[in-house]
Amino acid sequence: MRMIELIEAKKRGEALSDAQIAYFVQGVTERTIPDYQTSALLMAVCFRGMNKHETAVLTDCMMHSGDTVDLSAIDGFTVDKHSTGGVGDKTSLVVAPLAAACGLKVAKMSGRGLGHTGGTIDKLEAIDGFQTTLDKERFQAIVQEHGLCIIAQSGDIAPADKELYALRDVTGTVNELSLIASSIMSKKLASGAKALVLDVKTGSGAFMKTPEDAKALAEAMVDIGTKNGRQVQAFITDMDRPLGWAVGNAVEVQEAIDTLRGNGPSDLTELSLSIVTAMLEMASGKDTAVCRAEAEAALQSGKALEKLRAMIAAQGGDARVVNEPSRLPHAPFERVICADKNGFITKADTEAIGRVCTLLGAGRTKKGDALDMSAGLMLHKKTGDAVQQGELLCTLYASDKTRFDAAEAAFLQAVTIESTAPAPLPLILDIVKA
Amino acid sequence: MRMIELIEAKKRGEALSDAQIAYFVQGVTERTIPDYQTSALLMAVCFRGMNKHETAVLTDCMMHSGDTVDLSAIDGFTVDKHSTGGVGDKTSLVVAPLAAACGLKVAKMSGRGLGHTGGTIDKLEAIDGFQTTLDKERFQAIVQEHGLCIIAQSGDIAPADKELYALRDVTGTVNELSLIASSIMSKKLASGAKALVLDVKTGSGAFMKTPEDAKALAEAMVDIGTKNGRQVQAFITDMDRPLGWAVGNAVEVQEAIDTLRGNGPSDLTELSLSIVTAMLEMASGKDTAVCRAEAEAALQSGKALEKLRAMIAAQGGDARVVNEPSRLPHAPFERVICADKNGFITKADTEAIGRVCTLLGAGRTKKGDALDMSAGLMLHKKTGDAVQQGELLCTLYASDKTRFDAAEAAFLQAVTIESTAPAPLPLILDIVKA
Repeated sequence: MRMIELIEAKKRGEALSDAQIAYFVQGVTERTIPDYQTSALLMAVCFRGMNKHETAVLTDCMMHSGDTVDLSAIDGFTVDKHSTGGVGDKTSLVVAPLAAACGLKVAKMSGRGLGHTGGTIDKLEAIDGFQTTLDKERFQAIVQEHGLCIIAQSGDIAPADKELYALRDVTGTVNELSLIASSIMSKKLASGAKALVLDVKTGSGAFMKTPEDAKALAEAMVDIGTKNGRQVQAFITDMDRPLGWAVGNAVEVQEAIDTLRGNGPSDLTELSLSIVTAMLEMASGKDTAVCRAEAEAALQSGKALEKLRAMIAAQGGDARVVNEPSRLPHAPFERVICADKNGFITKADTEAIGRVCTLLGAGRTKKGDALDMSAGLMLHKKTGDAVQQGELLCTLYASDKTRFDAAEAAFLQAVTIESTAPAPLPLILDIVKA
Repeated sequence: MRMIELIEAKKRGEALSDAQIAYFVQGVTERTIPDYQTSALLMAVCFRGMNKHETAVLTDCMMHSGDTVDLSAIDGFTVDKHSTGGVGDKTSLVVAPLAAACGLKVAKMSGRGLGHTGGTIDKLEAIDGFQTTLDKERFQAIVQEHGLCIIAQSGDIAPADKELYALRDVTGTVNELSLIASSIMSKKLASGAKALVLDVKTGSGAFMKTPEDAKALAEAMVDIGTKNGRQVQAFITDMDRPLGWAVGNAVEVQEAIDTLRGNGPSDLTELSLSIVTAMLEMASGKDTAVCRAEAEAALQSGKALEKLRAMIAAQGGDARVVNEPSRLPHAPFERVICADKNGFITKADTEAIGRVCTLLGAGRTKKGDALDMSAGLMLHKKTGDAVQQGELLCTLYASDKTRFDAAEAAFLQAVTIESTAPAPLPLILDIVKA
């Protein structure tokens, strides 16, 4: 088999055979196919797409290109969630303890942030002592005992995807549906949970800019998961606004704690309850209303907050942060940004707000950049809100004062205030089930 | 400027700016842009194309990526020709002496064969002692004295094209019109002639499989040449049949000599006369009929054959080959192939016939392969001809008998004999002028 034949077939719009896809993934994993041929094929896929069968085969080959996690030793029903990446998206920090409090088992591997989106692992590392790298035995033991554990994805999960993702990032071939779907699902299937809730973001802060694109991606992923014997539901959610008020690392951990205490932002609370409800539905087959009530009870009773505390302690972190916010990193400097006129916030470019955080030191512009855990921002108004001239819009936090000017300018650029209120937009736009 | 921006812009279907194209060509020439980004852009161009302005700018940048030849010291009107590559295409060996005999100046740089097509330089090297590498001064001095000289293209002509071509060859991005047009024209413009005749082949033995595609390529190249102040005409010619009867190296030189003596195949003779007529038209502005008469006279008088003899001698070759065919390499073995039924040849896959020659040792499968100058084949029948069972179709020549079986099988596979004569197809389908 020759790689040029795969490239030319896809260029003509033909479907690749199972054997061709297997050859490709093996060649990528073993680095026997030169990058220039891989990128040519990826670009052809961007124009021609891959059908459902090709996408499923690609996913399967990438999943088996490295280790797959066997969670069968864990008693109970294992669940996982994945978000396609957003700004202020600390949902995993709320969902994992909430699901564990409902009796589900959350053995979760998460990623780090890159570009304008944050990562769960970075946020957890804002907690003093928290270990995100644990061996397999310890990881599973913590899940078994406490119902949850969140660690950084190991290097051996879907190495083919790792190679492809790095190349897609520098060759303009990131945003093709079948490539995104297979990338996400190869890692999630390798991670071993029985049921999975996908949170597909759409809007200015997401890869999928329209609800239609997001729905197509959601359907593709649900299809792949179902074909592989997993239960999957996918939420299409709005990312035209950051989720919650906090964007950064320590500030997002604090907001997750507040939410588990029942004092969180309504959008984050609602999305977290809905995701756990979906997980319970898949685990138990019970009615949505029953599952929803269970999730709400776990939140209100404080059991979910206790699960977070237990996880932090089990993973070596300072669990006192749950009751003592001062134990999280706090930035020495802050700057407030106020509205320069009366009106309504009609637009706030979420991706740009994510980049404001990077300017403050809370995000990475390239892999391996060190993060300032205390940097970030707190919104006081979001899209749709009425504002008065001089009213507080946002507070910026940084360890380095010189970062404020550029960050403030970028924030003001991202936000539009006009005289007419915009139409309200729901947070959860759709749910795709198998 | 960042390469990823160019890739994404072209992927969206946008035109690249002049500055972007200049950045790209410079990065390719200096090898500062990684191949995987270049191949991603090339694949995006295959889907989105480039407009006339982009193609002209790309050509200009590639032309200036290396040396440009200054022919202004040569007295008289400099002409050049280029064929997009065919099987049995020895036209340059006839056209160059014929044009020189008409008083034009032919300072020609040619290429070697690759894949199923032959190369003028390889054919000339079948002549004992013939030098295809000469320094600039000697090259121009021979043109000045004899009116013609043909050398191998030097490494410094359009180095950007050289890099791109090598990458296109292995990434399935060869056959896009703007890439082909800019590749050819960057080299031809750098070669310095005032007027240029392009022979764009179409059919089973050509890159452009349909006359429509060939015409679009011809128009693109005439447009680029005209924008750069050159006179250009492009012939669209049939490559559903090999040109002439001989395919190989020494056998094609012999056929070119026969043609210059007035005993050549009618298709090769007609195409050569037509090309020189076009050159004379561009040089003199005279009527076609007058120019045609001049070209015919140069052929009939034997002046053209004398020019070939002079060029061979000036370039160190054994000029006695012109009168003594036995001085060209001859294969020790031959095999004849006869028709297995009565009928008409309705189809002969020209590309496949080119590959038969490679099987005999006359062509390269990869760059740098040594060639058997004596290997090749002589057709006795071509598409449209009536054949009787047992009648001679083809003679194969090789230095190694073991090559015959595979070559014969491939030849028989390439030729279709049916009971009804096919519609006749003209050799010259169209001529595109500025």
